[in-house]
Amino acid sequence: MNRDRIRALLDQVKSGETEPEQALETLARLPFSDIGDARVDTHRALRAGIPEVVYAPGKTAEQIASIVRTLQDVGQDVLVTRTEADVAARVQGEIAGGEYETVGRTLWFGPADVATVGKGVIAVISAGTADLPVVTEAATVARCFGNEVDVLADVGVAGIHRLLAVHDQLRSARVLIVVAGMEGALPSVVGGIVDKPVIAVPTSVGYGAAFGGIAALLGMLTSCASNVTVVNIDNGFGAAYVATLINRL
Amino acid sequence: MNRDRIRALLDQVKSGETEPEQALETLARLPFSDIGDARVDTHRALRAGIPEVVYAPGKTAEQIASIVRTLQDVGQDVLVTRTEADVAARVQGEIAGGEYETVGRTLWFGPADVATVGKGVIAVISAGTADLPVVTEAATVARCFGNEVDVLADVGVAGIHRLLAVHDQLRSARVLIVVAGMEGALPSVVGGIVDKPVIAVPTSVGYGAAFGGIAALLGMLTSCASNVTVVNIDNGFGAAYVATLINRL
Amino acid sequence: MNRDRIRALLDQVKSGETEPEQALETLARLPFSDIGDARVDTHRALRAGIPEVVYAPGKTAEQIASIVRTLQDVGQDVLVTRTEADVAARVQGEIAGGEYETVGRTLWFGPADVATVGKGVIAVISAGTADLPVVTEAATVARCFGNEVDVLADVGVAGIHRLLAVHDQLRSARVLIVVAGMEGALPSVVGGIVDKPVIAVPTSVGYGAAFGGIAALLGMLTSCASNVTVVNIDNGFGAAYVATLINRL
Amino acid sequence: MNRDRIRALLDQVKSGETEPEQALETLARLPFSDIGDARVDTHRALRAGIPEVVYAPGKTAEQIASIVRTLQDVGQDVLVTRTEADVAARVQGEIAGGEYETVGRTLWFGPADVATVGKGVIAVISAGTADLPVVTEAATVARCFGNEVDVLADVGVAGIHRLLAVHDQLRSARVLIVVAGMEGALPSVVGGIVDKPVIAVPTSVGYGAAFGGIAALLGMLTSCASNVTVVNIDNGFGAAYVATLINRL
Amino acid sequence: MNRDRIRALLDQVKSGETEPEQALETLARLPFSDIGDARVDTHRALRAGIPEVVYAPGKTAEQIASIVRTLQDVGQDVLVTRTEADVAARVQGEIAGGEYETVGRTLWFGPADVATVGKGVIAVISAGTADLPVVTEAATVARCFGNEVDVLADVGVAGIHRLLAVHDQLRSARVLIVVAGMEGALPSVVGGIVDKPVIAVPTSVGYGAAFGGIAALLGMLTSCASNVTVVNIDNGFGAAYVATLINRL
Amino acid sequence: MNRDRIRALLDQVKSGETEPEQALETLARLPFSDIGDARVDTHRALRAGIPEVVYAPGKTAEQIASIVRTLQDVGQDVLVTRTEADVAARVQGEIAGGEYETVGRTLWFGPADVATVGKGVIAVISAGTADLPVVTEAATVARCFGNEVDVLADVGVAGIHRLLAVHDQLRSARVLIVVAGMEGALPSVVGGIVDKPVIAVPTSVGYGAAFGGIAALLGMLTSCASNVTVVNIDNGFGAAYVATLINRL
Amino acid sequence: MNRDRIRALLDQVKSGETEPEQALETLARLPFSDIGDARVDTHRALRAGIPEVVYAPGKTAEQIASIVRTLQDVGQDVLVTRTEADVAARVQGEIAGGEYETVGRTLWFGPADVATVGKGVIAVISAGTADLPVVTEAATVARCFGNEVDVLADVGVAGIHRLLAVHDQLRSARVLIVVAGMEGALPSVVGGIVDKPVIAVPTSVGYGAAFGGIAALLGMLTSCASNVTVVNIDNGFGAAYVATLINRL
Amino acid sequence: MNRDRIRALLDQVKSGETEPEQALETLARLPFSDIGDARVDTHRALRAGIPEVVYAPGKTAEQIASIVRTLQDVGQDVLVTRTEADVAARVQGEIAGGEYETVGRTLWFGPADVATVGKGVIAVISAGTADLPVVTEAATVARCFGNEVDVLADVGVAGIHRLLAVHDQLRSARVLIVVAGMEGALPSVVGGIVDKPVIAVPTSVGYGAAFGGIAALLGMLTSCASNVTVVNIDNGFGAAYVATLINRL
Repeated sequence: MNRDRIRALLDQVKSGETEPEQALETLARLPFSDIGDARVDTHRALRAGIPEVVYAPGKTAEQIASIVRTLQDVGQDVLVTRTEADVAARVQGEIAGGEYETVGRTLWFGPADVATVGKGVIAVISAGTADLPVVTEAATVARCFGNEVDVLADVGVAGIHRLLAVHDQLRSARVLIVVAGMEGALPSVVGGIVDKPVIAVPTSVGYGAAFGGIAALLGMLTSCASNVTVVNIDNGFGAAYVATLINRL
Repeated sequence: MNRDRIRALLDQVKSGETEPEQALETLARLPFSDIGDARVDTHRALRAGIPEVVYAPGKTAEQIASIVRTLQDVGQDVLVTRTEADVAARVQGEIAGGEYETVGRTLWFGPADVATVGKGVIAVISAGTADLPVVTEAATVARCFGNEVDVLADVGVAGIHRLLAVHDQLRSARVLIVVAGMEGALPSVVGGIVDKPVIAVPTSVGYGAAFGGIAALLGMLTSCASNVTVVNIDNGFGAAYVATLINRL
Repeated sequence: MNRDRIRALLDQVKSGETEPEQALETLARLPFSDIGDARVDTHRALRAGIPEVVYAPGKTAEQIASIVRTLQDVGQDVLVTRTEADVAARVQGEIAGGEYETVGRTLWFGPADVATVGKGVIAVISAGTADLPVVTEAATVARCFGNEVDVLADVGVAGIHRLLAVHDQLRSARVLIVVAGMEGALPSVVGGIVDKPVIAVPTSVGYGAAFGGIAALLGMLTSCASNVTVVNIDNGFGAAYVATLINRL
Repeated sequence: MNRDRIRALLDQVKSGETEPEQALETLARLPFSDIGDARVDTHRALRAGIPEVVYAPGKTAEQIASIVRTLQDVGQDVLVTRTEADVAARVQGEIAGGEYETVGRTLWFGPADVATVGKGVIAVISAGTADLPVVTEAATVARCFGNEVDVLADVGVAGIHRLLAVHDQLRSARVLIVVAGMEGALPSVVGGIVDKPVIAVPTSVGYGAAFGGIAALLGMLTSCASNVTVVNIDNGFGAAYVATLINRL
Repeated sequence: MNRDRIRALLDQVKSGETEPEQALETLARLPFSDIGDARVDTHRALRAGIPEVVYAPGKTAEQIASIVRTLQDVGQDVLVTRTEADVAARVQGEIAGGEYETVGRTLWFGPADVATVGKGVIAVISAGTADLPVVTEAATVARCFGNEVDVLADVGVAGIHRLLAVHDQLRSARVLIVVAGMEGALPSVVGGIVDKPVIAVPTSVGYGAAFGGIAALLGMLTSCASNVTVVNIDNGFGAAYVATLINRL
Repeated sequence: MNRDRIRALLDQVKSGETEPEQALETLARLPFSDIGDARVDTHRALRAGIPEVVYAPGKTAEQIASIVRTLQDVGQDVLVTRTEADVAARVQGEIAGGEYETVGRTLWFGPADVATVGKGVIAVISAGTADLPVVTEAATVARCFGNEVDVLADVGVAGIHRLLAVHDQLRSARVLIVVAGMEGALPSVVGGIVDKPVIAVPTSVGYGAAFGGIAALLGMLTSCASNVTVVNIDNGFGAAYVATLINRL
Repeated sequence: MNRDRIRALLDQVKSGETEPEQALETLARLPFSDIGDARVDTHRALRAGIPEVVYAPGKTAEQIASIVRTLQDVGQDVLVTRTEADVAARVQGEIAGGEYETVGRTLWFGPADVATVGKGVIAVISAGTADLPVVTEAATVARCFGNEVDVLADVGVAGIHRLLAVHDQLRSARVLIVVAGMEGALPSVVGGIVDKPVIAVPTSVGYGAAFGGIAALLGMLTSCASNVTVVNIDNGFGAAYVATLINRL
Repeated sequence: MNRDRIRALLDQVKSGETEPEQALETLARLPFSDIGDARVDTHRALRAGIPEVVYAPGKTAEQIASIVRTLQDVGQDVLVTRTEADVAARVQGEIAGGEYETVGRTLWFGPADVATVGKGVIAVISAGTADLPVVTEAATVARCFGNEVDVLADVGVAGIHRLLAVHDQLRSARVLIVVAGMEGALPSVVGGIVDKPVIAVPTSVGYGAAFGGIAALLGMLTSCASNVTVVNIDNGFGAAYVATLINRL
């Protein structure tokens, strides 16, 4: 309920330009009436130049295509997340110009070369190849949102020297996204090296007592590094979203 | 392992100024040798003007006083967190000038009026009076770390109009800390109103199926608002620490 | 053990119309002897004009058809819940007149236009498209049970203005069913707006720390709104059943 | 955000009676400005003749007394829940006329004989003496909220004949609250006997695998009786609150 | 380590009949050397006329057939449990005379008409059709082990009159096996009616908060009926095994 | 609802001896009207010579004394379980003749020398001294219920030879109660040695991953010995109750 | 960061043989630069003659083949773990000389007859056939790592005499790996017999309350035998790895 | 069941020196008859020069003193673990010569200077002061068991340079015990640095999502370092026991 728009509306009512009854309607529906019928992943208006995001699971290719078209009609770039390859192919069959990234499973309808808006570099760090889908989702989303991204894979805590080798890259990032499964110790170690905000993403990688990401999640929540916050298991998108907001500050 | 310091050291070895054996020693111990014996809450060097933090539980008043004194000797301000009233009194009996805040249980050895370093306002939002200890810890820590803080208590989701009444305050903050127990829904609602990073702090407030903060924790991790990250249950300090880092960007 | 029927029976014994031994038999088996062999979802006689309900999982199409036929023979309308499309098709192949609803997966053998018995409107509210199967099951069941139903989808807590836009509809309902996955915060917010009973249905929608509906379930059980009660995860049928009972009061 | 009040306000703006800026302020703060400073248990306006409720844990006797006084000043009856005996005594020392119920731990500031508003009887059923605090809280709250209450304790499922003995009382209630710890089976059995809404309250009574109420909670959520909804563990207040809303329909 | 056999062995050593070294060997391997290579479900010698039992999962049809043949060679009847239909068919293809029961998935190599050894009737009681596989396994195993079995399905707690109708059958059993999923309340109610041992079998039937049998398991462990003991989820075999031991006492 | 009594009643109705209305009343209240006001642990009539049992927790000494007196008045022996020493002393102060057992915390009002009714010996086996309270409760209850009891403590699985030393005692028992905390492995090993029913009692003894008895409980439920059933954590009473029923068969 | 290599490097800097800048690069990347691009299971250099290990899940046959080839090029033997048969076949199609073990699913590129380096025997003990994949993985890994291995399957705790029969073999091992599912009691019993380190491996074998290995895991962690340590569920590889390290001491 | 002793016994039977009946008795009771009545922590004979260990919780000072005296009588050194200060004082009041260590709460009856039997150094590593009780228990036990011990506290993962500073000490240990609470990441990092067995001890240190040691436990079980095994939460004794066995190999 944007205060300025409400004030303008009330001024119109005062001047008689708008009838109270009509103002009432506008008042109630204003904030999202211009978005159309789309159901975006983020559940709220992504203002200020961040593209709209569509969460694919549970939607048919037809539904996704319809949402994308509506958003493109109003001039929005659109990012579709967690899109299986066959669904992506069918959406691309209906709408030209989409770019599908197979590892992170994102489908992007926007400029090939997104203008950089973020003020610094977002580093995306992970330990193992198994975490790559989450790493890639985070990196792709961050790039589509206008950030410079530096991906540092394969730097697990059990080979601490690898981490030290990328020490300078870690410390030159403005925000860090650290992705880890199993015991999820990487954010603690990275958090101890840098003095920037670290967004930890537990992944469901691992077996047995990894319990589908619970071990990593608990490890990150109880991290002894104070600069670590946590998002949901496998939520590379969410990490990139918050990192983008921070990187624009 | 600061790259510049290593390069300098290697240059000294090259020039014969330093013996290899001695350089080796320096190399291994360099980064923390100048910190002294103190065991800080954050487990790492808090550089760049953030005061040192001591986590009180498990330490005697004597141990805390000793750490504070050591840090004061090297010119550091010190914040002691989770300090019970009797422990604080005993520390204050040994070291003059500490300020004890009874609700958030922090003990501050630093200027009464900390200079503002953060670029904007950190808003700390909560629903109920039971969450006040965590809210107050977060607010006090943020103030001691040089931020302007705006506390908005008593704005729970079941009285949604209260939230709308503080709409402008919410939207004018640069970073938001949202504290909630029970179902922990507040960060989702606040996250939908603002386009800034929201740090959610689940509290152990509640009974029965609240399970000491698990309900709130899970609710925050699965928030439908994309700008929400989460810290440990009752971790007001951690939220303020990350908010400080973000607010300095 | 209907008191009147027992009294009548005892009168018959007194008058000699019925032998004690025979009365004993009747007494023991009376309440469900007229229902036949059917195994209904609710596990008890659905008296007073509520149709019989058959829970499809674990039953073959033949078994379902047989139950439906038996119930139709005694004049009952029948609602089959959680019916997969292929099973529904085979049941419809055996018994004419069934109407299959594909989203909520209900199969209805009754009048196309059920007479309204409920005294007010049952509102069914949800946040996202992924919850639609549960929403639709609840709405369809409520309609087949003789209620006027108002479905309000896509009104999640992270876009609070959407909720306000349907404010009047929410407040004009006599009973509300609120369906939500992930953090399950919607019932708290809706419960704060209305002063009517809110039946919360957690759904298994979500990933990671949603834990198949546990996050939403705990959130709803610990809701800060006092007018919220909860049913099992994904139990749209149960919510509609209770809402029907309330709406007839 | 009452639609009528907004319309009136907009009319005033149109007529020039109110300035837009002032209307804006009113608009944002309207719904709860007349409630005052009180922090009520239910977190929202309890309109329509239901007394205000104050949740005692975490509040000092002074704070409680202050809230009670404020509410009494505006003509409200007040019910304080979960009040320990010593706290109650101190509140009563400051404010005359309160009635303390020791088993359910409620403190009531209102008429000794509350006028009956509810349309029928609310039955409160339980199995064992250990559940009495929750049973009594539910019964007392329901009475203070203007309902006729029928308490049926000691009717556990392992002595099924006791239940049959109160069969008529069960069936004559308009709403039923069933309180049970341990395996929590009572709501299923009661739910099978009546055709009215059953609100199940799991209690933390039991040991070992009762896990502080989890066994009862899960049992109630998975009840094979369709007319059962569930509230939080030990939440007698919440059950009475919802039962009151239903009983006024 | 049968005491008599050891004594006989020691006597042989004393008499010189057996060398110490050879006795030592015998001593160590005695108890199971005569059983052969078979890996039986019960992990121990099933003496005293109870047939051998083979747990099928994880074994190939060939392995099962080989074990059955070995056991038949030494004159044992064999019961194979949890056998999928295709595996059973292949075993029956190799060994004649097996009888496959499709619901409980047992494969029986023994007399069609097992002589009754148990002293009384074992009642197997359940609520719903979904529990039938476990009910049937329990009943079939009990019959193959020489017991008279009385199966009482479809007597759930939410239709309490059904239970009363079978009151006499319940009370005439010597041991009772009660099978239930969802909230698992049936053993409590049955346990309150009879004064014989009740063996409760939780099943994985149910959805949501049933958590694959956990709700039923916890409910049974915390049963308010003192004559109830519990076996593992879906363990119809184990219940029948113990019931057999009791029924032979 | 005893069939014979009902038949007699119906015969009386037929003969005009009893009015239908009066018969109806009798019918509903019959089975427990002669038990009085007592609230027994077992929640049902303990017929056939088993003493009444009162579960002490949550009852005052006065309430316990009142129940005991009532039961003694109708000629019942009474066993009070889980009685703290001070409560027991106060009950004994009011009623003469009680015997308090301090380890198992039972208070017995009955003959010092209970006549043996059970047909064989109940063995109670445990591993460690920490389990003694549960062991002693089970043994005392079994003795008060008229069984010969053989207690075998200190025979843990990690000293397997101790178990073998009591091999004969184990095998000569008619029913076995095996009590174990920590990993709860003892029932599996004992179950492999005997061919009698084994009732396993997990205890809350242990720390860390013992989780207050969960480790032992799960271990017993998944025992590879088929003759094992399980009761609730620390439920020595329940184990003795069931063992008594079995031992009377 | 091998101290000797660093010293050598510093000496080279001193002597002018190496430029500081170049030394800096070497310093940072040294420890793993000679391993190549391979991502090994153990995440760190497996020095001292232990072959490299590749964890197959999540890798394509092409990726595995590439890693194997790289490692073979530098003279390493390679063991691929958890390899499905079809993946193994494709890797073998690209690289000659691999040996696939079908039960433990390992693929070995090394000498058919590995030279024994370990000082004693590693015993691998298990109870049931279902645990064989984990047993076989452990045994194969231990053999490829140069140990003499003694596999003792089928010695479950419920048939305690089988264990005694292998008493000598148990006691002659230098390290023991004990594999068990279900209640996981075997390590406690074995641990009581031997005075050597016992590495316990819980398996996911079992159903119901086995909870995919949790019951076994908790049982092993709370073992009453002090010589037991535990690895992750189904982690035969890890157990063999540690046993190898111990066996080389 | 020592094979040699059995053989000797059988020889005696053969020679007529011992009667079969008497041999039988000896056979069954042999292995622990010479230990006396003591109940040791380890539940089995601690042969080969390791002192007896008594687990204090649940034992009175008198019971502990009695056990210690018995063991001293047969020439054993005794270590009492988890002894509260007041209990220790009372034991020391009865038996002279005990040494109480207040942090790790051990009470030692043995030589002040235990002869070193272990072949190398056992390193005990931890991150924070809160873990000191567990660290100290482990170190004291290891010293009493005849090992050289190197304690390295305060080397948490968030200050990775501290770890590198003790790199040489880590690598020179023969076995390592790594103690950590909260996220429990330290064993992974240490495990990556050394090529020796690492025994990880999770502690109950931490709050919120640490869940009393569960977070650390899961983190250690899922460690990406292959040389890590795990013991129970806070089990410093167990870690030292296994480390001792390994260090004697």
